[in-house]
Amino acid sequence: MTLKKFNFNVNHTENYSRVGVIETSRGNINTPAFMPVGTQATIKGAFIDDIIKTGSEIILSNTYHLMIRPGVDRISAAGGLHEFMNCSLPILTDSGGFQVFSLGEMCSISEEGVTFRSPVNGDRVFLDPEKSIKIQSVLGSDVAMVFDDCTPHPSTFEVAEKSMYLSARWAKRSKTAHRDNAAALFGIVQGGMFLKLRDISLAKMQEIGFDGYAIGGLSVGESKSELFDILEHVMSQLPVEQPRYLMGVGTPSDLLEAVKLGVDMFDCVLPTRNARNGYLFTSRGDLKLRNSRHKDSDQVVDETCSCYTCSNFSRSYLHHLDKCNELVGSTLNTIHNIHFYQQHMQRIREAVHHERLDDFANEFYGQQMDSRDV
Amino acid sequence: MTLKKFNFNVNHTENYSRVGVIETSRGNINTPAFMPVGTQATIKGAFIDDIIKTGSEIILSNTYHLMIRPGVDRISAAGGLHEFMNCSLPILTDSGGFQVFSLGEMCSISEEGVTFRSPVNGDRVFLDPEKSIKIQSVLGSDVAMVFDDCTPHPSTFEVAEKSMYLSARWAKRSKTAHRDNAAALFGIVQGGMFLKLRDISLAKMQEIGFDGYAIGGLSVGESKSELFDILEHVMSQLPVEQPRYLMGVGTPSDLLEAVKLGVDMFDCVLPTRNARNGYLFTSRGDLKLRNSRHKDSDQVVDETCSCYTCSNFSRSYLHHLDKCNELVGSTLNTIHNIHFYQQHMQRIREAVHHERLDDFANEFYGQQMDSRDV
Repeated sequence: MTLKKFNFNVNHTENYSRVGVIETSRGNINTPAFMPVGTQATIKGAFIDDIIKTGSEIILSNTYHLMIRPGVDRISAAGGLHEFMNCSLPILTDSGGFQVFSLGEMCSISEEGVTFRSPVNGDRVFLDPEKSIKIQSVLGSDVAMVFDDCTPHPSTFEVAEKSMYLSARWAKRSKTAHRDNAAALFGIVQGGMFLKLRDISLAKMQEIGFDGYAIGGLSVGESKSELFDILEHVMSQLPVEQPRYLMGVGTPSDLLEAVKLGVDMFDCVLPTRNARNGYLFTSRGDLKLRNSRHKDSDQVVDETCSCYTCSNFSRSYLHHLDKCNELVGSTLNTIHNIHFYQQHMQRIREAVHHERLDDFANEFYGQQMDSRDV
Repeated sequence: MTLKKFNFNVNHTENYSRVGVIETSRGNINTPAFMPVGTQATIKGAFIDDIIKTGSEIILSNTYHLMIRPGVDRISAAGGLHEFMNCSLPILTDSGGFQVFSLGEMCSISEEGVTFRSPVNGDRVFLDPEKSIKIQSVLGSDVAMVFDDCTPHPSTFEVAEKSMYLSARWAKRSKTAHRDNAAALFGIVQGGMFLKLRDISLAKMQEIGFDGYAIGGLSVGESKSELFDILEHVMSQLPVEQPRYLMGVGTPSDLLEAVKLGVDMFDCVLPTRNARNGYLFTSRGDLKLRNSRHKDSDQVVDETCSCYTCSNFSRSYLHHLDKCNELVGSTLNTIHNIHFYQQHMQRIREAVHHERLDDFANEFYGQQMDSRDV
């Protein structure tokens, strides 16, 4: 058995914001941290070596996708997920709960767990807390997540309540199944858009006790103000000693606002997915590469960016690659967007460290322009 | 005006095979050389930096595609093709003749030149020797090709004869237009499948006089034996002092056989195109990545290969990426295939240097296996 190594130290705080370091056996993670999404044992569009060069210190991968394809036995035989995909960074694995939820009517949920049909071969697949935790252990995850039921949005109070209690019972089963596994285990606070249900979930998660706490069931279609109302409410009740992870959020400004509320970890598909669609993040706002105004621009995407793409290629060239559907264009865009996110987090960390996050926020928002002008 | 720098020195010969070095102002090229194809100002699927790491010393790009998109003015404004795509390697540009030929009935050929419709926006486009040479000059090509008429296959003697004479007149006009341009200019021997016409083309090209000579109009649907019969016939009459370039050929064994006949330069889309379709070249033959036998294989693609892909990833992982249509899979396959081609050329050069090309060929063919066993 590998000895567990998961420490979180907060080095500095400014109001609710904090900078810290998560120590794992595979390396340290400076927080607040952004985790690029590597659903199918790869970051879409970029080598893990290039992702490391963007400053990423941890990535996320998905239990659900990997159990469907290539299958747990395959990854186990390869020596685990890190070995299979040749990734030296720590990996946080989602438990599969959210993906099962995304299947909608294709799955049936019982007290025991979830049954669904594999979208790859139509096989009937069963997933429950014990199996999810077991798979995450076989994958060699550095941070495992409890198996939860993600409440649909919008939901009635009754539906959200039932779902939240089920998630709480599954969280307990996940903790029991996890036992003395070397990985960290995070609980997930659910409860939909109902503060009262969020309170119950918060209490139950802390009663069980986890290495970190995630806020789930957000960014599922609610308004930004709802999202931040729930987030602020939940954050104020989470213990300060453990990392807090806001799942599936968000834009650069979302990250900034969430850090203000004390969030330490994020994941989101936006930088990678938008890259493949020619949407680039810059310090002056979103750049739509397909806009014809970039056709003749010898400018780089973002003059304040030191990424491989901005160091070597013009908007004009990236526009051309996009027009021609060249794979290299997707890769260059992906590297830029991930680098932009990591640079954004780095600037946020420095601002908190120097207790000037509000100044940073003012500068950040002051630079934002309409995409027609970026 | 940049001073012309294009020297070719043969350092060693074995029978008709030779190893040498082409010197250009952008770097030296060891011959026999394989040129990866970068049609649209990028090698499909891989960064030029990664292509350089495969041992590639020159790439090919296409006048036709670049004039259509992004347009010559754009590349000119960027400072030339090398600057636009940020490529430090020498670039050979195809003249557009072959691509126009590929359009078939969409183009009309006259003594003056070719008129066709842009496949991008439907505009009527005119291309002739003077314009092709001018474009190649603006692109900043290191090796320009004459604008030729590529004879369809099969053709009657009369059609092939007419086409060959037109190509010869266009070659003369290309030479005149090229004048004191800093780039090298290669003539192209045409004549279809008729030795008599090849002889006339050979004489006319040498009468005009070029920095190198290409063999065009092959690999257009004829049998391998026809190809090599024509090639052997042409090679025996080309001057030994200039490089000989076999256009659009071919498989690893084609390259080996063509080197035996004295060819110095090659280009082909096979390694890049096959990579994207999961066909990998190995020292033991072709590997079909999609075959289920690779699903659980922890082996690398080719144990004798030192490329990035073979140094880091298993067949199983590449099989998984291919199944999931992950871009990273195409990139890893592309890097491997180009590296394999360059390693193959390196081994061929060493064999010629040590006057053991026949031994090398025996070893090479002796290792080839059915793809079910690779």
